[in-house]
Order: sequence, then structure tokens, then C-alpha cells
Amino acid sequence: MQPTPQPTQPAAYSPTDRTVPTRAAEKASYDREVVHSILDDGYVCHLGFVRDGAPVVLPTLYARAGERLYLHGSTGSRPLRMTGRTDPGLPVCVTVTHVDGLVLARSAFHHSINYRSVVVHGTAHQVTDPEEKRLALDALVDQVVPGRSADSRRADRKELAATAVIALDLAEVSAKLRTGGVNDDPEDLALPHWAGVIPVTRTYGAPVPSENLRPGTKTPGYLSAL
Amino acid sequence: MQPTPQPTQPAAYSPTDRTVPTRAAEKASYDREVVHSILDDGYVCHLGFVRDGAPVVLPTLYARAGERLYLHGSTGSRPLRMTGRTDPGLPVCVTVTHVDGLVLARSAFHHSINYRSVVVHGTAHQVTDPEEKRLALDALVDQVVPGRSADSRRADRKELAATAVIALDLAEVSAKLRTGGVNDDPEDLALPHWAGVIPVTRTYGAPVPSENLRPGTKTPGYLSAL
Repeated sequence: MQPTPQPTQPAAYSPTDRTVPTRAAEKASYDREVVHSILDDGYVCHLGFVRDGAPVVLPTLYARAGERLYLHGSTGSRPLRMTGRTDPGLPVCVTVTHVDGLVLARSAFHHSINYRSVVVHGTAHQVTDPEEKRLALDALVDQVVPGRSADSRRADRKELAATAVIALDLAEVSAKLRTGGVNDDPEDLALPHWAGVIPVTRTYGAPVPSENLRPGTKTPGYLSAL
Repeated sequence: MQPTPQPTQPAAYSPTDRTVPTRAAEKASYDREVVHSILDDGYVCHLGFVRDGAPVVLPTLYARAGERLYLHGSTGSRPLRMTGRTDPGLPVCVTVTHVDGLVLARSAFHHSINYRSVVVHGTAHQVTDPEEKRLALDALVDQVVPGRSADSRRADRKELAATAVIALDLAEVSAKLRTGGVNDDPEDLALPHWAGVIPVTRTYGAPVPSENLRPGTKTPGYLSAL
């Protein structure tokens, strides 16, 4: 699936001018495993691109396959048409964020959020190779529910034609993380306010089957892994 | 708190060229109450801006106060320095997304996500009025945990100076929603694959108090509303 096999990946991405934060640099990470784990923990990203000189940010699904992200949408959607129109590709920024906790300090100033995020800068290109496109669509389904692509009808020729997939290589990448507890100033510790962390998680409810399932269809085992 | 009181708000935002989607227009909404409810249901947005011609998307906290969004960060952070440098303000796109469910169709093509999102286009300006800045900081704390700002030490002069707040008016705004069940094609209904929806929610765990709380400090009642 990985288009350009690189048997010996360095353990970290190389920082660039735009992946080095101007502040809170201690929260930044370029570690490849950290970046991958944050990306693998989600499936909705925020895709940024420039249209008529102004920024546009849209939520969309993504999948990671090796050192490449795939994003998809209708061939009629704006960013996907723009990648097609722009010969050298579309400059994008793709950001994935997980909220892990609310950090309540005694001082309003030190209130914070525990989070993990990844920001990817680069140029997105339309995937034109049919086989890569098929594999990317499988990856997009499996990113949301691992194992699901093998238990669904694959896209037919017409559906493939109606779906555009764009690819973005993981090269200019950084992660940013905040973990741990409250960082109040020493002189605030005696204040009477409660302080602490409220854990935040994404929770999946019981699957709600369609009313018209074929009789005898069981809830698949891979759903219990969510 | 609202800078420009408008006693008779129209029930909907006016669509513009960039808030009318090129596809799935039936999912779009300009209804003011719908937009407000989606914004009020979150506190992390994705802020997009253009830097050296390329898009940048960063997660950040926001609060809604009437028809205005407030975003904050260190005065040293990039977008906040850019609003300061750019006299007419910084063109931004602010997007808020909630994932409500995974839609598993029999066909890979009809897999989808139930979600609610709001996209705000506009020009962000730094908040320079001290009173508006104080109220905005309260709103930012209360957006995450309603009631919390009154139970914490407010920012002092030094902290206020170190914090930048930017404001973005809700004018060019749209919501997009997908709700409901699976939309398989009729000819796929007899396929043996399970189909249905997995509900997704954000869940808060039990508050973890700081170890050095003043003895006798109780868990505040407003935390149980989360």
C-alpha cells in the first residue's frame, strides 16, 4: 500500500520552520511513532486549503497507510476539484485532534485541555492509479471500523468514478501533546477553588441495526473492538 | 457582552458563495438556532489561516457570546501575532465538528458519519478593550465548564497582558448535518452484511482532584452537569 517503500525510516520527522511552534515547544513532538499513534486513533481530520486567497477548513474522513494520508470525498466537492485543476497539487494542512481531558486550575489563566494533535503540511494530489484508489478506499473504511472493508460490498466502477481520493505524504509533520495535571502557580495553591482534571473519552454506544437487515444477520465481532 | 446589539436577529444567516456547498446541499443549514446549538455543544475549534500563501489549521479553544466567537492563545502564538500585525485583521475560517455516529452501510460507498459541523468565514480582530477581553476570558472558561469562571481566580494584569483574544463575528456562517440511518441502494438490501449505526458520544470520567487541594475542598456541583 505504501507507494514509496522506505525500509529504514528515521525515528522522527525533520522539523521545519512551520512545524516548530513559536511557543510551548516542549509540547511538540516529531517522533514517528507518536505521530502515527495519534493519527491511528482517529478518522476525522480538518482539511485546510486556500480558496481565492482565504482559508477554508472542512471536516473530512482520512486514513493513514504507511507514510501517506488518504482523504476522500465526492469528485464534485471543492477541495477535490481543486486538486484536479491545480497541476502541481493543492497545498493543504491536515490537522487531527483528540481531547483527553479538561484541566481546571485554581487560576483561570492556567485552565487548559489535555489533548493530542497532529498537523501535516504538504501538497495533496489526486489518486489516479485504480489499484491505489481501491486500497485507499478500503483503508478509509477500515480507519473508522477496523475489519469493516472486508465485510461490505466494494465500490463498483460507477461508484469509483464518483469518488475522488487525495493523497498527502507524511513529511512535514508535527505532533503536539498536553498531558498530566494542573500547573497552578505556587502562590495560588492555598486558594479555595477545586482543581483537577476531568478525563474525556470518545464512547461508542450499542450498535443500532438497520430495520431491514437480512434475517439472521448477526452483529459482527469487529464492532466489539470499538 | 455582545458588541453590536441586534435586537431583531433574522432566523437564518444569509448564504454566500462560499457557504453554499457544491454538493450535499440538503445537509446544509443556515438556521441561527441550529448554528448556535452546534457551537454551544463544543469548545475546541479548528482555526484556519493563511501563512506565506499556505493554509495552516490549528486546534484551539473558543467561546460563543451572542453573535461573536472568541478564540484565545498566547500573545506569542502565530495567528495571534498575525492578527496584531495585519491592520485590517486576519482572514480566518473557524470550524467546529461533532461526530455523532458511524454509519455502516452494506456497500462501502454508502458508509458515512453522522455529524454536526459549523464553518465560520470572516476576519478576526484582536480584542483590545480590557472589559471585553475580561468577559471573553470568562466566556472561554465557561464554554468548557459552565459555571467555572466564577469559581476560579480571574486573570491578573500580567496574565491579561500575556493572553491574546481574537474575535470573529458570526456573519458568514453555515452548518452541515448528517443524521439518521443507512442509505443503501435497493439492490444491496439483500446482501448478507450487517448494516446500522454506532452512536458516538463524548464522555466525561470522574473528576481527578489535584493532590494538593486545600483540605475540605469539595467537588463542585457544576461538574456533575458535564
